Amino acid sequence: MSGRGELKPIKIYGHVAGPQPWKVVIVLKELGMAYDIEFLTADEMKVAPYIDICPNGRVPTILDPNTGITLWESGTIVEYIEDLYDHDAKLKYTTFPEKYHQKNWKDYQIAGHDLFLGQKAYFTMFHTDQDLSSVHEHYGNMTRWVLGVIETQLTKTGKPYLVGDKCTYADLMYIPFNLVLADKLMRNVSENFEKEWKEKFPRCYDWNARLMQRDSLKEALVEKYRAMDNAGWPR
Amino acid sequence: MSGRGELKPIKIYGHVAGPQPWKVVIVLKELGMAYDIEFLTADEMKVAPYIDICPNGRVPTILDPNTGITLWESGTIVEYIEDLYDHDAKLKYTTFPEKYHQKNWKDYQIAGHDLFLGQKAYFTMFHTDQDLSSVHEHYGNMTRWVLGVIETQLTKTGKPYLVGDKCTYADLMYIPFNLVLADKLMRNVSENFEKEWKEKFPRCYDWNARLMQRDSLKEALVEKYRAMDNAGWPR
Repeated sequence: MSGRGELKPIKIYGHVAGPQPWKVVIVLKELGMAYDIEFLTADEMKVAPYIDICPNGRVPTILDPNTGITLWESGTIVEYIEDLYDHDAKLKYTTFPEKYHQKNWKDYQIAGHDLFLGQKAYFTMFHTDQDLSSVHEHYGNMTRWVLGVIETQLTKTGKPYLVGDKCTYADLMYIPFNLVLADKLMRNVSENFEKEWKEKFPRCYDWNARLMQRDSLKEALVEKYRAMDNAGWPR
Repeated sequence: MSGRGELKPIKIYGHVAGPQPWKVVIVLKELGMAYDIEFLTADEMKVAPYIDICPNGRVPTILDPNTGITLWESGTIVEYIEDLYDHDAKLKYTTFPEKYHQKNWKDYQIAGHDLFLGQKAYFTMFHTDQDLSSVHEHYGNMTRWVLGVIETQLTKTGKPYLVGDKCTYADLMYIPFNLVLADKLMRNVSENFEKEWKEKFPRCYDWNARLMQRDSLKEALVEKYRAMDNAGWPR
């Protein structure tokens, strides 16, 4: 493995609007690492040459020319980057039990938060051929449940982040989907979800706002919106 | 940390029928580790005292009296057990890049396989207040997609397991949900899904059958069916 100064950029396959690849971008920006992102359309993800490197036909996938590895699950990619390149433990705990608590919150992000917000997004934006009002209510309520879980954790610990006083990669992974939560995902089940979020889940709301203040996130957003504009994708 | 002989049993909170806790049971059985499982109803998961240790109100949660840790995401629990107690690397690769490939397939299990099979299960068994035929078709097709991803991997590598020649914890994590795939999940979108699985995804089918031959799995199934019978839960 080469030293930090000699690292070649990480290649990322992403999508301009979909949230998952931006988790990886945010973490790389936090660590000051170079990357080269190529945007694919949903159709391009399902065919060769991409499907040959990612059998799941979704993004992100990374190729790390420094090690030769290919990985295509966002949670694994972030852990890999953290293990190999976060030498100063900027975004992670290395102590016990904190390292497993951060892993628990990372797994909750990819398996719980992504599940419910992702299905709310899918049925709101794409799957519209039947009257699915009970489905919208269900995923709307599950989304509220996830925010409530975060609220409970922050209330119980009285800390600013999911695992204590330090912002870890686990916190940052929640941001890309939260970005579209109020205006895109919940608009058909709540009149003003931004207000509901702030009133019902105030610690979760403040935690999200705190994360949004980070330079990595601000820079990733500029890059994301520029990419969306270039692709003619509505914001 | 005490030596293996002196370990106290891991405490698991589970559910007789739900698949997730059985991932943990299978891995503990593979490693020959003692555990003590307490079954909760869905209602009990959502209130104190359980909600105080698992803010997500779902199972599994483990308490490890040997270290004092509490964890409540199945993927994290399995990784934790592997890290601390699989001293002989029975169920894991410790080499690069295999250790990240196994993590990638583990994350695909908790974030992809669980998502689609879980939502197919939810809408088939519980959420039945509207005509949701397009939802069943959707999750049926996504379930087929997940099996296809596994088929592609096994075809591409020509190997018996997801990461080469060794059965890892990542393979084993797929089993509990696959158990109910043909008879419970897919019955309303496919006339004979067992046959369809075998014909369309033969390597995936054989891989699943290979995993089902393991003693850990057979023993876990005996335990699961006994618990279901005791709770008066239909098989």
